[in-house]
Amino acid sequence: MSLKFYYDFMSQPARAVYVFLKVNSINYELKRVNLGKFEQKTEEFMKINPMGQVPVIDDNGFILRESVGILRYLCREKNVPDHWYPKESKAQAKVDEFIEWQHLGLRLPCGFYFRLQWLEPKITGKPPKESDLKRFKALMLSSCDTMENIWLNNNKKFLFGDHLTIADLLAVMELEQTKLCGYNPREGRPRLTAYMDSVKSETSPHYDEANKIIDKLAAMSKL
Amino acid sequence: MSLKFYYDFMSQPARAVYVFLKVNSINYELKRVNLGKFEQKTEEFMKINPMGQVPVIDDNGFILRESVGILRYLCREKNVPDHWYPKESKAQAKVDEFIEWQHLGLRLPCGFYFRLQWLEPKITGKPPKESDLKRFKALMLSSCDTMENIWLNNNKKFLFGDHLTIADLLAVMELEQTKLCGYNPREGRPRLTAYMDSVKSETSPHYDEANKIIDKLAAMSKL
Repeated sequence: MSLKFYYDFMSQPARAVYVFLKVNSINYELKRVNLGKFEQKTEEFMKINPMGQVPVIDDNGFILRESVGILRYLCREKNVPDHWYPKESKAQAKVDEFIEWQHLGLRLPCGFYFRLQWLEPKITGKPPKESDLKRFKALMLSSCDTMENIWLNNNKKFLFGDHLTIADLLAVMELEQTKLCGYNPREGRPRLTAYMDSVKSETSPHYDEANKIIDKLAAMSKL
Repeated sequence: MSLKFYYDFMSQPARAVYVFLKVNSINYELKRVNLGKFEQKTEEFMKINPMGQVPVIDDNGFILRESVGILRYLCREKNVPDHWYPKESKAQAKVDEFIEWQHLGLRLPCGFYFRLQWLEPKITGKPPKESDLKRFKALMLSSCDTMENIWLNNNKKFLFGDHLTIADLLAVMELEQTKLCGYNPREGRPRLTAYMDSVKSETSPHYDEANKIIDKLAAMSKL
């Protein structure tokens, strides 16, 4: 039985899956797909994922794409504690509520700003349009405020109580990505700060391992 | 036991949940939230969903937002045939793969073009920027092509075989919304045409009931 994990640490959801695999001591074989070299768009990789994206898993021949689906599948198939994705129907539905919201509610605003401000200028050599930057920065700020004022307005350690769920891993990795744009989502958001620190501490040292490359690139951008 | 369903037929995911409830003969109480009158942003409704969005269900006091989470919850809690969201782990993972892809892969491109081309000009009285329209139309076309060439490249009646899943309802409602922009996703896409017709026929007459308002508005736009 083998589990292959196609990833790159530049991908937020790939980092979320990586931390999940590590914290739960699930055995896997790492398959780096270098996004910087566009390896996700090669003919070979497009056979594995025609969308040309990571993460992907290959669980003994069963290929699965999309981080949220991957995390749910791993919770069902591997021997992980129930708190990651509760089997109880209402508790599970509440985790789903966040996970489904975050695609357009958190990942889109933070990820689009990252693309515009950091990624696309590196690829095209052209600076982003100021009006686009302004528009998507406003969306990102509003999204971080929604985390602070709505999702974290429960005085709990994590999104759904005292234990981690797969929702927490997905959330923090999107938030961390913004540092590449010189943005700090913690600033002025005490709940978000405590929350991100809690997730980092609970998943140490794998959180830092996963974020090592973006931490380094963010530090270089400041020089 | 009561199930309240907060909806508006202008919302793609609300239409998907409506058709699911109807086809499965689940009893519910309709609670219209008129998006045209911004009722989703009233203080009263924001207590039910602080995101100010439909659909929402209230299942005997348990409030749940986000269409995908709602559909999964209803599949678990109500007596519906297994094909809607298979319990078998790998089959379920494959449905999840589509559902999680569609947020940014289908809903974003189609929905964003709809917002830019149809909705925002109605609200602001200002025409959309040509460069924005061009950019998001290209994304919408590419998304419809991905449906035709990748997801429907299996010669099956529906996305996952001969029976409907919740993924089909979510997909077709996003595709239908584009007609408000004068776009016809079926044109030049024979698989997508056959597929959308199959979903419509399998869920008749509820498909047309759900789409009645957007059909009417699309017809008016052509005059």
